[in-house]
Amino acid sequence: MRLSKMFMPTRKEDPADAEVVSHKLLVRGGYIRMLTRGIYDFLPLGWRSVRKIEQIIREEMDRAGAQEVHLPAVQPAELWKESGRWDEYGPELLRFKDRKGSDFCLGPTHEEVITDLIRGDIASYKDLPVNLYQIQTKFRDEPRPRFGLMRGREFIMKDAYSFDIDEEGANKSYEEMFETYKRICERLGFDYAAVEADTGNIGGSKSHEFQVLADTGEDEIVSCPECGYAANVEKAEIRLPEYDGEKFPPQDLELVETPGKKTIDEVSGFLNIAPMRCLKTLIFNCDDTAVAVLVRGDHDANEIKIRGFLKEHTDISCEEINLASDAQVTEITGAPVGFAGPIDLDIPVFADLAVEEMTNYTVGANDADKHYVNVNHGRDFEVEAFADLRRAQNADLCGRCGAPFEGHRGIEIGHVFYLGTKYSEAMDAKIQDENGQMKPMIMGCYGIGVTRILAAVVEQNHDDNGIIWPMAIAPYQVTVLPLQMRNDEVVETGEKLYEELRAAGIEVTLDDRDAGVGQKFKDADLVGIPVRIAIGSRGLKDGNVEIKLRSESDIQDISVDEAVEYVKGLVQKG
Amino acid sequence: MRLSKMFMPTRKEDPADAEVVSHKLLVRGGYIRMLTRGIYDFLPLGWRSVRKIEQIIREEMDRAGAQEVHLPAVQPAELWKESGRWDEYGPELLRFKDRKGSDFCLGPTHEEVITDLIRGDIASYKDLPVNLYQIQTKFRDEPRPRFGLMRGREFIMKDAYSFDIDEEGANKSYEEMFETYKRICERLGFDYAAVEADTGNIGGSKSHEFQVLADTGEDEIVSCPECGYAANVEKAEIRLPEYDGEKFPPQDLELVETPGKKTIDEVSGFLNIAPMRCLKTLIFNCDDTAVAVLVRGDHDANEIKIRGFLKEHTDISCEEINLASDAQVTEITGAPVGFAGPIDLDIPVFADLAVEEMTNYTVGANDADKHYVNVNHGRDFEVEAFADLRRAQNADLCGRCGAPFEGHRGIEIGHVFYLGTKYSEAMDAKIQDENGQMKPMIMGCYGIGVTRILAAVVEQNHDDNGIIWPMAIAPYQVTVLPLQMRNDEVVETGEKLYEELRAAGIEVTLDDRDAGVGQKFKDADLVGIPVRIAIGSRGLKDGNVEIKLRSESDIQDISVDEAVEYVKGLVQKG
Repeated sequence: MRLSKMFMPTRKEDPADAEVVSHKLLVRGGYIRMLTRGIYDFLPLGWRSVRKIEQIIREEMDRAGAQEVHLPAVQPAELWKESGRWDEYGPELLRFKDRKGSDFCLGPTHEEVITDLIRGDIASYKDLPVNLYQIQTKFRDEPRPRFGLMRGREFIMKDAYSFDIDEEGANKSYEEMFETYKRICERLGFDYAAVEADTGNIGGSKSHEFQVLADTGEDEIVSCPECGYAANVEKAEIRLPEYDGEKFPPQDLELVETPGKKTIDEVSGFLNIAPMRCLKTLIFNCDDTAVAVLVRGDHDANEIKIRGFLKEHTDISCEEINLASDAQVTEITGAPVGFAGPIDLDIPVFADLAVEEMTNYTVGANDADKHYVNVNHGRDFEVEAFADLRRAQNADLCGRCGAPFEGHRGIEIGHVFYLGTKYSEAMDAKIQDENGQMKPMIMGCYGIGVTRILAAVVEQNHDDNGIIWPMAIAPYQVTVLPLQMRNDEVVETGEKLYEELRAAGIEVTLDDRDAGVGQKFKDADLVGIPVRIAIGSRGLKDGNVEIKLRSESDIQDISVDEAVEYVKGLVQKG
Repeated sequence: MRLSKMFMPTRKEDPADAEVVSHKLLVRGGYIRMLTRGIYDFLPLGWRSVRKIEQIIREEMDRAGAQEVHLPAVQPAELWKESGRWDEYGPELLRFKDRKGSDFCLGPTHEEVITDLIRGDIASYKDLPVNLYQIQTKFRDEPRPRFGLMRGREFIMKDAYSFDIDEEGANKSYEEMFETYKRICERLGFDYAAVEADTGNIGGSKSHEFQVLADTGEDEIVSCPECGYAANVEKAEIRLPEYDGEKFPPQDLELVETPGKKTIDEVSGFLNIAPMRCLKTLIFNCDDTAVAVLVRGDHDANEIKIRGFLKEHTDISCEEINLASDAQVTEITGAPVGFAGPIDLDIPVFADLAVEEMTNYTVGANDADKHYVNVNHGRDFEVEAFADLRRAQNADLCGRCGAPFEGHRGIEIGHVFYLGTKYSEAMDAKIQDENGQMKPMIMGCYGIGVTRILAAVVEQNHDDNGIIWPMAIAPYQVTVLPLQMRNDEVVETGEKLYEELRAAGIEVTLDDRDAGVGQKFKDADLVGIPVRIAIGSRGLKDGNVEIKLRSESDIQDISVDEAVEYVKGLVQKG
C-alpha cells in the first residue's frame, strides 16, 4: 500500500490518559483510536495485525480439531437465569431490554449459549467429543477500563467450549487446548508462562492462565525455576521454610503507645522492629459471618485462598468474601482502623501458616493509638486454624519442591478452564452414555484475548522510538522509503522495488508521501514494520539501497538488483 | 473434515416458524440455529460459507482501494445527538445505559463513529479521498424479525464510508463502490438488479439498492428491458401512457347506495365497473397537516413520493408522513373508513398523474354506505396538483424511455448512498480545501448484508431436496461418501480419495458415519456440497466411483485412479 493513500494518522504526542507503552505507541503509530472510555476503533494498520493474530489462533484451533462457529452477541436473560449467573454476575454484565421489554445481555462469555445449542442437537455419547470455538467481539463493563487495549470494555476474544461424556475425555480436551495455547504463544513469539489459576466466576475445578511476562502486567505470578511449577500469586501453593533455629522463649506481653501509627510500616518504624515481626489483622465478611485473618507484616492476605479454605475446612458459609468496612472494623474491634488485633476479639481468628512458628510479635491492641508487643498465640489468644491464606511472592518457597519462587508480572492473554458439569447440570444438558444412562456432559472452556494480545506484543517488543513487530503479526512485512521525492531515480527505484516485492507476495508499504527524510525515518520506527529499505541519492550512485531490520541497528548496503531476493530471505526467516 | 467428528446436526423437520425456503434449508442442513427471535447461531458449515462471502467482499473492497478497519459495536449517545439521529431513530436503535448511567446504543450503522474518527485525524484535502470499511456484527431491533437470516435482529454487515473534498470526487467514490458491488454480485453468482432507491433514514441525495431477484423477496422493484432503468417501486419514475382516444363527455353526478362495500374490489364488484374506473381517497398526516391523495383503484399510493412532492413543491411541512387513523378519517370525512372521497372535503386534495385524464369515475361519498359515480375533477371538486404519487408496478411505462416495466420481487443485499454533507455538516467535520478554506467533507456510505447474502444464495439455489451451493461459497467443495462402511475396500477407497483430495488443496468432507446409504445421500443433497463422490462395492468391481454435481442429475462413472484429477477439474471450473 502507498502511504500517500493509507489512513495512517501518526501522532507526535502520547494520549493524555496513557499509562503503558502499548497504549502510547498504538495510538501514536496510527493503530487505534479511543471512541469512548475503554472502547477503541481499530485503524487499517491495527486491524491488519489483529487479523493476523486471529488467523494464527484459527489455524492452531483447527489443527486441534476444534470447529469454528459464530454465536450471537445479544443473549436472552432466560439462559443466564437457568445457569444462575443472571444474579451472580455483577455490573460488568451489560443488561438491557428489547423493544418488547424482554431482558437481554451483551455476552461477556458464551457458556450459556453454547450449552443451549449443544443440548438441543446432541443426544448421544457417540456425537462427542465436540469442541466449538468462535472469534468474536465481547463486552464487559469494567469499573476501571485502562491501559488502552489491555483492559477495555469492548474487545475481541477467541472462546472455545469442549463437551465430553467422561472425565478422561474432558481431561484430554483440556490438555489439547493447553498444548494449543502453548503453540499459539510460541507462534506469537511471546516470553510467557502457563500458570495455575483460580477459576473465578466462570467456575470449574481446574484452570491455567497464559501470562505474557511484562513489567506493566496487571497480574502477579510466581514460577519455580527448579520444578517448573508456576501459578498466579492468588493460587500458588507455598511451602514454609523449615524452622531450624532455637525458639525464643515467650517474653512478657506489653501494651505500648503508638500514637497515629496505623500501617505496618509506621508501626515497625516507630517501634524499630522489622515488618516481618508484626502481624496484620484483617477482618473479612464471609457471607453473614465476620472472621479475622492474621498474616505476617510483609505478607498479603489472599481472599481466594481464605474463601477456599473456609468452604472446604470449616462450617462458615463463604460464597462471597469482602474486606469489612471501616465502620464495621470499629464496631468489631472497638478501635479505629489500624489498631485491630487478635487479643480479646469476639470473632473466629484464622492465621496464615507463616504465623505458626512466630513468637513475641506485635499486633494492634483494639484500642486507639496502642499496640501489644511480645504477643504469643496459644498464650495471649487462640487461633482456630493455621492454613495457607496469603498471596505468594518472590523468594517464597515453591509448594511443590521447596525451591525459591521467582516473582513476575504478567499480562493474562489466555485462560483455560476445566468446567466439569457446572453448566450442564444447571441447564440440564444430559445425553445417553454407552449404557443408555443420561449423564450431564463434562465441559471445558478456553479463552484468548485477541485484542489484548496486540497490546501484549507491543509491551514485549518496542524501544524508545516505537514498536518492533515480530514478522508473524506485523501489519506489513517491509516498508520502502524513497528519501528524496524530487529525485527521479530515487522515486523510480522506490516504485520498482515496491512493485517487485508486491509481485513476490511480500506485504509492503511505499512511503511515497512528500515528506522529509526525518519524518519518514521517524514514522517507520514508530510504526515498526520489520524490514526497512531506504533509497537515497547517495547510495544509488553506487547502485545500492540501505536495508535495516527494525529489531537491529545494523544497516546493510545491498545492490538494487539483489534487494528483492535479500528481503525475501529476511521475511522468510521471520 | 470427517462427518463423524463434525458438528453438522441435520434435521428432517422444518422449523415451525419458517416461511421461506432458505430459513428451512439452513436450519435443516445444520447451518444455523435460532437462539431467540431474529437472532441466530452460525454452526460450523454456516460459518464457513459466511467467511467465504466475507472474503469475496474483502477482496473486492481492497481491490477498489478501500481500507479495512474495525469500529466498536457500542457507541456513545453523544455522537448520535450531534448528528440528530438519537431523536430521529425509532425503537430499532437499541439503547442502554452503562454502569455509570451514560447513554449508549448498539450500532445499527456507523456514520457517526466514522465521522468522529475522520474529523479527529484528517485536516487537509491532501489526505482525501479515503474509503474505510468494516465487516461487523450489527443490531437492529426489528419489530417483526422473520424469514430466518433475511430479516434478523443481529446480523453481519460490510459497511463502508467514503470521504471526499468535492462532488466530483464523491461521485467517483460512489461509482467505484457501485462497480465493486456489481463485481461482488457476479462473483456470488447472483441473478440481481441494481436499482434506484430512496435514501430512508440514512439520508443523502442518491442511492442504489442491489436486489437479488427471488419470489420470496420482501422488496418490489421494476426494471425496463429497453433502457435498463431499474428502481424500487417506491422510487421508480413512471410515464403515463399517451391518451389518444376520444374523451368521454362528463355525465351527471350520481349518488348511489353501496351498503357495506368499502374496498375497491367490493365497490367495483357491486357496481360492476372496473377497479381502474374507481379512485382510492387516502388521508395522510404530514407533520401537522392532513391531506387527501387520490390514486386509481388498481394503483398504490407511495408515501415516499408524496412526502418528496410536498416538501419540494408545496408549503406543507412533511418531515414525517403517516396514514391517518380510522378515527381521524371519520372525523375528517364524517363517514366510516371505506367511504372517503374528494367531494366537499375540507383538506387539500392531491392526485396521482394517472387521475388527470380520467372522467366519470367512482369515489366515496363521505357518507356511510354511499359512493358517487360519474365524478369529474374540475367540475365536482378541485385538485391542488397532479403528480407522480404512486408505486410503480409491472407494465407501468418506464419514466425514462416509455417502454413497459417488468416487475420483480427482490432481496436487498446491498445499498449504496451518496450522503453529501449531512453528517459532516452536523458533526462539523470540515477540512481545508486547496484554497485554505474550511469545507465539510462529502461522504458516501455503502452497505452489504453478509448474513442476508447466505439466505439469498439459498433462495436462488435450491431444489426440493436441499441447497445447491455455488462453488465460490460452498462450505466444502467436495463430499466423499463411502456407501458400505462394513466393506473394507469401500472404506479404504474413501479414505484414500479423501486424503488425496485434501493433499490437493480441495476442501472435502468424508461421510465416515456408520449410516445407511439413504441417509448419506439425503444429507448430501440437503447440505448441498457441489461435488459428490459415491463409493459403492458394485462400482468398485469395475474400479469405478460415481461422481455427481449437486446442480445436475447426470452421474459419471470415473475410475478410482482418475477421480482426483477429474474432481480437481470440476472444482476449478466452479
